[in-house]
Amino acid sequence: MSRGKAASALDLPRPDSLHTGKQQGAYEALRAAILTRQLPAGSRLPSTRSLAERWQVSRGTLEAAFERLHSEGYVQRVAGSGTRVCAVIPEQFIAAALPHPKPRREVQVDRPQTGVQSHVPFVARRPDASLFDLKTWARCISRGLLAVGPGALEAAHPAGLPELRAQIAEYLRSHRGMHCEADEVIVTTGIRHALDLIARTLLTPGDIACVEDPGYPPARRLFALAGAQVQAIAVTAEGLETAQLPERARLAYVTPAHQAPLGMTLSVSRRLALLDWASRADAWVVEDDYDSEYNYNSAPLAALKSLDGGDRVIYCGSFNKNLFPGLRVGFMVVPTALRRPLMRTLQLTGHSVGVTDQLGLIEFLGSGAFVRHLRASRQAYQARRDTLLECLGGRWAVSGQQAGLHFVLWLPAGVAEEDFCTRAAAVGLTLQGLGKFCVNARLPPAVIIGYTALTLAQIRFHGRVLTQLLMVA
Amino acid sequence: MSRGKAASALDLPRPDSLHTGKQQGAYEALRAAILTRQLPAGSRLPSTRSLAERWQVSRGTLEAAFERLHSEGYVQRVAGSGTRVCAVIPEQFIAAALPHPKPRREVQVDRPQTGVQSHVPFVARRPDASLFDLKTWARCISRGLLAVGPGALEAAHPAGLPELRAQIAEYLRSHRGMHCEADEVIVTTGIRHALDLIARTLLTPGDIACVEDPGYPPARRLFALAGAQVQAIAVTAEGLETAQLPERARLAYVTPAHQAPLGMTLSVSRRLALLDWASRADAWVVEDDYDSEYNYNSAPLAALKSLDGGDRVIYCGSFNKNLFPGLRVGFMVVPTALRRPLMRTLQLTGHSVGVTDQLGLIEFLGSGAFVRHLRASRQAYQARRDTLLECLGGRWAVSGQQAGLHFVLWLPAGVAEEDFCTRAAAVGLTLQGLGKFCVNARLPPAVIIGYTALTLAQIRFHGRVLTQLLMVA
Repeated sequence: MSRGKAASALDLPRPDSLHTGKQQGAYEALRAAILTRQLPAGSRLPSTRSLAERWQVSRGTLEAAFERLHSEGYVQRVAGSGTRVCAVIPEQFIAAALPHPKPRREVQVDRPQTGVQSHVPFVARRPDASLFDLKTWARCISRGLLAVGPGALEAAHPAGLPELRAQIAEYLRSHRGMHCEADEVIVTTGIRHALDLIARTLLTPGDIACVEDPGYPPARRLFALAGAQVQAIAVTAEGLETAQLPERARLAYVTPAHQAPLGMTLSVSRRLALLDWASRADAWVVEDDYDSEYNYNSAPLAALKSLDGGDRVIYCGSFNKNLFPGLRVGFMVVPTALRRPLMRTLQLTGHSVGVTDQLGLIEFLGSGAFVRHLRASRQAYQARRDTLLECLGGRWAVSGQQAGLHFVLWLPAGVAEEDFCTRAAAVGLTLQGLGKFCVNARLPPAVIIGYTALTLAQIRFHGRVLTQLLMVA
Repeated sequence: MSRGKAASALDLPRPDSLHTGKQQGAYEALRAAILTRQLPAGSRLPSTRSLAERWQVSRGTLEAAFERLHSEGYVQRVAGSGTRVCAVIPEQFIAAALPHPKPRREVQVDRPQTGVQSHVPFVARRPDASLFDLKTWARCISRGLLAVGPGALEAAHPAGLPELRAQIAEYLRSHRGMHCEADEVIVTTGIRHALDLIARTLLTPGDIACVEDPGYPPARRLFALAGAQVQAIAVTAEGLETAQLPERARLAYVTPAHQAPLGMTLSVSRRLALLDWASRADAWVVEDDYDSEYNYNSAPLAALKSLDGGDRVIYCGSFNKNLFPGLRVGFMVVPTALRRPLMRTLQLTGHSVGVTDQLGLIEFLGSGAFVRHLRASRQAYQARRDTLLECLGGRWAVSGQQAGLHFVLWLPAGVAEEDFCTRAAAVGLTLQGLGKFCVNARLPPAVIIGYTALTLAQIRFHGRVLTQLLMVA
């Protein structure tokens, strides 16, 4: 098959959708064809019409599978020229694909709640702390504290204990495809701390800082606090519209794994374009990877930082979302040139992380408890997401549901976001309108739906309420 | 005895110096006379000459006792008009005087060092983390974690867990004479975090921020980082020269308990003058109380904040000096008007303290382990200070040795600080010249001596080295 010519539907093996559902089956068959080079880089995919006939599935099913391949960076869709396999596909730069978790609905992943369950439906970015095993954590801290001498209690490592930085680097190598060393890691109290340090170190009044629009509001506010001129860059289906980046800027802040809040994955071609821009503009790229551990349908793309040959990406991660919000430990992986200036700001402002938590985390990561917890919470969150999507019954459009701690629910045309949120609040639902995340973007009405902190029973109950609200909207 | 007339030496009971030494005896007799109103407020003390004859002690001994009463705020000394009892004496506003610890030299307070003892003589502001009982700490954390439900792991309390804030308020009431409630407490990562929050919340470019000269350099740098115009105010024997404060300023930063680095206590009259100024200038007073737990010769003065009727003082304390430096937990007590703006900055910048340490501290404070640890470390530090002063043999002038984690050693006239520090470094001593703390102040040459992190054996060894250096200086 020559490059550029559409593959014949006859060449592709028929998907096995017996166990997985038609859409999943179509997706897997196409992805397998891309991975095995049956559909090589640059080649055009068959039309949905021809595949629909051949595979005996609806065009809608195929459309959804194509969309997913697109959002994950396997294919590009250009109006009028069909769908083509991307030049660089995810597997070419992913280091260690996670095993594909089968959807699970076992009730035991939702442990009975002790104490008051104070989670409000459907606030976003809220992990479920009750999935975190406090006994294991207490044991890790005791072991960590008693294994060290009093020397470890001194604050001689403002960047974090070397052993913890080594563990974090190892995790990022094996799970996020990054080639990083302990020396590049700086332990922070979380994403905001990292953004604040970056802003105070790199931005001087008048500097241009680019953010996604819609995007994470605290990033805008922290850059503005440092005196920067914040420039909002539109987000399309492939993520940040890199073509809109200005010729000169000091930095661009992105959420490549699961755009906050729209939820798409930054495509591979946009990733490469972003790094090109940073190099040309002599700018820094700030990668916020806060919920990358939660990919429900496929292996996650490796971090943007893993493509960063020019050492322009400042990577920011956090344990506050995947362990528990009250932990207050995160990390950055920083370009060599920025390590010293960032450390100067960190030391002057004195916000280093306590050694007690650091010693506990060394044990928690080193013993494998961390990866086990990630797996268990990923399964629990997937079941919750599936339950909520089932409640919605496919009658309303959602997006960004393939990963992360939230998805976007598009409201029926003409519904005002604020009115809808007010009516939702009256029946106990705390929703955030998409508009709260927008600077200049004018998007159809939508709300952000967080489901990860709720039990299946809560999701079913409040999901019904949400559905009723949508029906009368 | 009428106000203003010198008390006759005959009226005062002769000191009992059998067990305490002559200077301590003279000090205690005079202090008792003040406390019992035998020497009422405003009255003049007998001259050192008349007392020396009556009590059969040298005038030098009495001079030292007078100086100490002066530094502790009992008396004022005015050239040409003698020494008078202050209008407000410490006991009138101290809530709970600590029991006067008898000097102790038991070896067991210096526990054998496990692991590498990495402390460098004589770096200042370094507590001895080996005095901290890791087993107790690990037990407190386990208890704290297992006593709570997962709800406590949420970050719903950016100001700190209510129970910890209540414990801190209780400690400050009983030990620092402050009348504060849990709602006024904000948990921080330490003094620098507090100063950074204050600077970012209160200072806008061009605002005047007053600091002590000499003073704590990070305070100057953090205020300057926020764009403030930093104004250095001279320090005299009574502490900050309040008369030099400008008519308009946004805030003044002070270290009333043990001036950093000179070590005197801010006198009661200066405290009142400072609060008057803050009220007139509509300014805030930032009280850094970081080493107030270490008073070796007398009960400490209550915190400046305890006198703060006008709610103008932002009080900053820390557990990083009295527990261990790697802990990273401190606290502020803030005026009602500042709570919301400070919390807004704290929440945006995301530097709140992790709940693990907070839960451990609730147990540690609540069980009495904290006060026991303070007592034990105070005794250990006092023995170390006494040993070092003994090494110096009274041949060189020191000041600020009555409290805190360091004292000032005045160099022989004509010795250049930097040369002396260079020579000290060559024989393994890391000294800081007083000049590093000065902005405009021109003071005689001196170095800052920290002794708290060293064992008695290390102090004896390095103390001899220091003495030899001084002898050849």
